Amino acid sequence: MDFNINNFFDNGDRKTKIADFQDLDHIDGLSISTVSAGLYEKKRDDLVLFYFRQGASYASVYTQSKLISENIKWNKKIKSKKISALLVNTRNANALTGVGGLKAIKDLSLCLSKNLTEKQYSDEESPKKIKQNEILFASTGTIGEKFPLNKIKDSISNLIKNIKYTQNKLIWIKAAMGIITTDLKPKLAMAECKIGSHNVKIYGIAKGSGMIFPNMATTLGFIFTDANLSSSVLKQILSKNIKTTFNAISCDGDTSTNDMVSIFSTNIVKNPLIRNSNDIKLKNFHKGVNEVLLNLAKRVAADGEGASKFITIRCINCKTDKDAKNISFSIANSPLVKTAFAGEDPNWGRIAMAVGKTDAKIDVNKLAINIGPHKVFFNGSLYEKYDELKVSEYMKNYALEVTVNIGQGNKNFTAYTMDLTKKYIEINSDYRS
Amino acid sequence: MDFNINNFFDNGDRKTKIADFQDLDHIDGLSISTVSAGLYEKKRDDLVLFYFRQGASYASVYTQSKLISENIKWNKKIKSKKISALLVNTRNANALTGVGGLKAIKDLSLCLSKNLTEKQYSDEESPKKIKQNEILFASTGTIGEKFPLNKIKDSISNLIKNIKYTQNKLIWIKAAMGIITTDLKPKLAMAECKIGSHNVKIYGIAKGSGMIFPNMATTLGFIFTDANLSSSVLKQILSKNIKTTFNAISCDGDTSTNDMVSIFSTNIVKNPLIRNSNDIKLKNFHKGVNEVLLNLAKRVAADGEGASKFITIRCINCKTDKDAKNISFSIANSPLVKTAFAGEDPNWGRIAMAVGKTDAKIDVNKLAINIGPHKVFFNGSLYEKYDELKVSEYMKNYALEVTVNIGQGNKNFTAYTMDLTKKYIEINSDYRS
Repeated sequence: MDFNINNFFDNGDRKTKIADFQDLDHIDGLSISTVSAGLYEKKRDDLVLFYFRQGASYASVYTQSKLISENIKWNKKIKSKKISALLVNTRNANALTGVGGLKAIKDLSLCLSKNLTEKQYSDEESPKKIKQNEILFASTGTIGEKFPLNKIKDSISNLIKNIKYTQNKLIWIKAAMGIITTDLKPKLAMAECKIGSHNVKIYGIAKGSGMIFPNMATTLGFIFTDANLSSSVLKQILSKNIKTTFNAISCDGDTSTNDMVSIFSTNIVKNPLIRNSNDIKLKNFHKGVNEVLLNLAKRVAADGEGASKFITIRCINCKTDKDAKNISFSIANSPLVKTAFAGEDPNWGRIAMAVGKTDAKIDVNKLAINIGPHKVFFNGSLYEKYDELKVSEYMKNYALEVTVNIGQGNKNFTAYTMDLTKKYIEINSDYRS
Repeated sequence: MDFNINNFFDNGDRKTKIADFQDLDHIDGLSISTVSAGLYEKKRDDLVLFYFRQGASYASVYTQSKLISENIKWNKKIKSKKISALLVNTRNANALTGVGGLKAIKDLSLCLSKNLTEKQYSDEESPKKIKQNEILFASTGTIGEKFPLNKIKDSISNLIKNIKYTQNKLIWIKAAMGIITTDLKPKLAMAECKIGSHNVKIYGIAKGSGMIFPNMATTLGFIFTDANLSSSVLKQILSKNIKTTFNAISCDGDTSTNDMVSIFSTNIVKNPLIRNSNDIKLKNFHKGVNEVLLNLAKRVAADGEGASKFITIRCINCKTDKDAKNISFSIANSPLVKTAFAGEDPNWGRIAMAVGKTDAKIDVNKLAINIGPHKVFFNGSLYEKYDELKVSEYMKNYALEVTVNIGQGNKNFTAYTMDLTKKYIEINSDYRS
């Protein structure tokens, strides 16, 4: 793990850095396949299948929206502890599609179950039937449009034909490209660690871009490992590490109907049985999962629609965790703060405004605001040595940090976001296409 | 009251309609004066004095921000039931200005008290001393910059020299222009009604434009009447009518440190003494105050930074008032909804997303969404006769309405907002000037 995630977004040219993702390789027990089902006007891969030929333990977190998509409803009902496949489609969210949307999922699961079972009997030594309730679905795209069932169904046989039992960097990039919508860049991350004496891999891909203020997960994030871990242990690991990673980013304060982050383990590595996520043997695994999740989450924020800056908001020394989170996101979601950053204007009064508008009690004499390394507000008024020229110079960086010290306790939260530019308006006021 | 406020923003060319404000005239007991104190680079009126030569009863509502400006702190401490003057400055918010900001207010109140007392002794038959604690201050502009005390102080004598005891349309427009910042249009409104057999006037001006999501009031709104009403009755009237007017608008979800809406009565009209705001004699006065507040509030939303559309969001049939308000504002504040409106795209899925992301429980089968007169979502899925071409045609109007029926109770709320355009980004990412 010589890849230093903490420095990843600190400086430099965004394009180089984002392109500079890690090389993901093979994970035993996982297969990936991508095709174009013609869901977009321009042809591109828009359908991605993750297939676990020997099954996988798994855990998921889903959107907290009160209106959830049909695929999320399907996934939530699945009781099976082992999963055989995950199908991801783009362009259409299958949300608010009513009875037709649910029927489409049922049709697709039947079709996949049939085709994958056939594949089992042709490829495996001890083949097993792949059941409908061993298949998860992820969808992302426009809400409320009719789900393109037939186009997807017609592509299933091709998708199965394309299944490769060995992955390499290229296949991972194709998968990461196959799940994006308005994202400019694929998002991949990896970590490797030991559980006991056994080496395990933790690979992940994600997509984001718009409607990003996950209450539970981001639009889509998938983590894969070959570690031998049960679904219940995976659930604990994911729940713990999602809070400071995917649940710490916001692009626009809007929460999707389709958010989903999952972790899958193929259980190929023969590490000893672990029953509890707090087991000391999992210490590095926790760290690895956190790194991969945070790396992906930062990439989602940095590639938020129209972003020209990546912004880290640290809110420190609050009375409660809730205050720390609310204040961080109040700043991260403020259009006036975000436009000031776009304009490279150290208009710290807007940061103070966003601090003031939450429910948290603020003592102005204990409040301190730093922009990057520069003290700005301190002891009830503008810092005496504040030099606007210096801070303006700092604002020209790509990666920016704000630290707000509330001075009332010891609870901290860090949120990640980007600036608000004309490009965001352009992308989102374009008639759907 | 033949001016039909309900139809005011319904159709047509915004410029004509906004310019088409009512003619405000004289109110006995009120004097207005405006000057340029050179607070902006380009010379314009930036300092406005409202002077009540015989005093005025008054009531105010202020921002709910936890960080409030020095002038709001000053106003909140005033215990006097009679007010003699209100001074409004633009360009500088006098917020987070620390000890210097408070001292500036003290200096200005002393200076005004001295000068106005001199004027009393020169002009009035029974002159009285104007005390410091009979003077209110309103400030709007950049947060955190040093308050321009000297420029303002140097302009006081001119301001007092300019006092006219009779107002006309022109003076009201000058006052409304003198209090704006990035607003494109002055905001004026009026109503007239009877209290018993006595005619009374209700005049108002406001400013808005950015950082508009008042929790209590908008940046600035001032209502003037000649009715004979005590401060405590005015307080009840203002509190009741603010909820559905200034507290129902949002431009960007950001709440200012300086919000303030006040009502002043010169008590010149000799209507009978009224002790309670629920008195039947005040029925039409309530209606008049509500009309003036709503008219001004709509103007603030319609002139929100960068606005090209005026949007009314009705959320009906909720279980609680809180749900109705939260859902309305979740839609009104969603950048994805606002950009879709800017693009004239009936992307109703984004409206549904904004409904789903609040805490309110939603039953998708009871939910109905209308865009203007067009049914869109109904009975758990897209309305069978939905015709996107027709709805797209409707989206080309300047004034747009969304109705979301939650179908779970009888509580309603209506929010007013505008679309989110590139112009908003342009205005707010410009380095302060």
